[in-house]
Amino acid sequence: MNPREWAQRIVKGDIRAASRLMRDIDDRMPWVSDVLKELYPHTGSAYVVGVTGSPGVGKSTLVDWLIEVFRKKGLRIGVVVIDPTSPFTGGAILGDRIRMQRHSTDSSVFIRSLATRGSMGGLSRSTSDILRVMDAMGKDIILLETVGVGQDEVDVVNIAHTSMIVLIPGLGDDIQAIKAGILEIGDIFVINKCEREGAERMEREIMMMLELGAQRKDGWVPKIIKTEAIKGKGIKELVEAIEEHRAFQEDPERKRNFLQKVLKIELVTHLKDQISTRILDALGQEEGLSRAVDEIIAGEKDLYSKSEEILKQLMCQ
Amino acid sequence: MNPREWAQRIVKGDIRAASRLMRDIDDRMPWVSDVLKELYPHTGSAYVVGVTGSPGVGKSTLVDWLIEVFRKKGLRIGVVVIDPTSPFTGGAILGDRIRMQRHSTDSSVFIRSLATRGSMGGLSRSTSDILRVMDAMGKDIILLETVGVGQDEVDVVNIAHTSMIVLIPGLGDDIQAIKAGILEIGDIFVINKCEREGAERMEREIMMMLELGAQRKDGWVPKIIKTEAIKGKGIKELVEAIEEHRAFQEDPERKRNFLQKVLKIELVTHLKDQISTRILDALGQEEGLSRAVDEIIAGEKDLYSKSEEILKQLMCQ
Repeated sequence: MNPREWAQRIVKGDIRAASRLMRDIDDRMPWVSDVLKELYPHTGSAYVVGVTGSPGVGKSTLVDWLIEVFRKKGLRIGVVVIDPTSPFTGGAILGDRIRMQRHSTDSSVFIRSLATRGSMGGLSRSTSDILRVMDAMGKDIILLETVGVGQDEVDVVNIAHTSMIVLIPGLGDDIQAIKAGILEIGDIFVINKCEREGAERMEREIMMMLELGAQRKDGWVPKIIKTEAIKGKGIKELVEAIEEHRAFQEDPERKRNFLQKVLKIELVTHLKDQISTRILDALGQEEGLSRAVDEIIAGEKDLYSKSEEILKQLMCQ
Repeated sequence: MNPREWAQRIVKGDIRAASRLMRDIDDRMPWVSDVLKELYPHTGSAYVVGVTGSPGVGKSTLVDWLIEVFRKKGLRIGVVVIDPTSPFTGGAILGDRIRMQRHSTDSSVFIRSLATRGSMGGLSRSTSDILRVMDAMGKDIILLETVGVGQDEVDVVNIAHTSMIVLIPGLGDDIQAIKAGILEIGDIFVINKCEREGAERMEREIMMMLELGAQRKDGWVPKIIKTEAIKGKGIKELVEAIEEHRAFQEDPERKRNFLQKVLKIELVTHLKDQISTRILDALGQEEGLSRAVDEIIAGEKDLYSKSEEILKQLMCQ
């Protein structure tokens, strides 16, 4: 099957073709690039909602509810879950995804878990490529679930049209610790497990933080929604907030600005990823890397000089 | 001042010279590379202890205690705190670092906060370069504090000789969520705020997880230490665990394996970082990037073809 045929299958919604492509994107197989080029003209209509938060705050339960609500509205849903990976085994964990699996018999819901990669991999590139595949499959909404507050997550949040930050009361100086990071990029703040002590205080703190911070360039005033996801409380309000932000994002100028921002991120991460692959190739894979490191250990070259030497071999300038 | 003089000052412990270099490393100034080359032969003796955990688990309080205990043993201490950054303002937050500042009048304690960078930056490279500067300054122990469970943090944990993972009871399916990620790379697990309900259960869960998991290649059996850092409880046991792991790491073969692992990570991240800089240069900085993106938006080229085109201009192959 040639790349065009493969792409056509995916555009028609062929789940097996899409799954195979996604796996190979994740494994950095060279053939995927031609299929992605063919898919490109069929993308651009999916709406991406990012769901970010520390482990244990209830992201999966919230995502599960969103799937249910959006399905009832007749929308086709894609879900991408980014799992912290074992750097040893390379495997993703699916633990509490099981809940979500009740939707897996629904052919309009496509759920995909992505592992974060070792230090040679790049999270962002395969994420955005996989979002594109779901987009090409005709998904209306893609829910993108990520853990943590690291740079990878900031990148992921940046490519979502609407970013939800999920928090829970009782994490002490939580707000203090994350304020400068994730608070500024959240369009919606969800205080989940809001039956717990400290929910009101947390709400006030977020509000204060938002008031103290510089006004956002795009003019959006972030929403704070309290939920008790396990009982379905606050889900209606959450969906309304998402829809309100979506309507806001529909403005043509905002739309163009957003597209430019995302494409810049995608282009740069794509380039970095391609080049990383070539670095390893040029080093003759692992073996060459070991040899280079042995030279450094033996004191023949320092780290910085060796790095420059390899670079000169790789680059034209 | 030439690079050799600059390096000599730092080796002699000149704090102003070191601070200036570190700032310029963080800002990716080209001149730093020559100083780092000069410093290289003076490095290799510092012992790095990583302290990782979600926001609010009490990492800073623990670090504060470790500074105090190691200082009493007459050791020179470096502290590197990696803060989640605002992608908008680029600033690092220092909120609860204030506690630590009581050590800042002690000239043998050198504390440095590092912001994580935007998507073009690389966390890992400047981190390891800054560790090298502290190493060259003659620090015996460097405490490296990071937030979160993302890939950046895994990389950071990988370059520490001893990795502490800090957890607190009451985060629900916490362990479940992080098990495959950070659990396998922790040498010591700290259950902080152990006066809280659920500490015993958490301890059992970690133990079970460690028993279920594959035995570590290096043969180390991770320790679990319960602390109530705010009251100084468990700190003695924690320090003993660190020292025990340090003795374990002293084995010559383990030492060499560790050095190889770290140098591989450093070399690759260094190369990636250098190349990223050159990508932006080749694109003519932001302006060229905008132009490339506009071409994509206009439909003249798809993302993947444009990326290939830029790559061809950059690389010799």
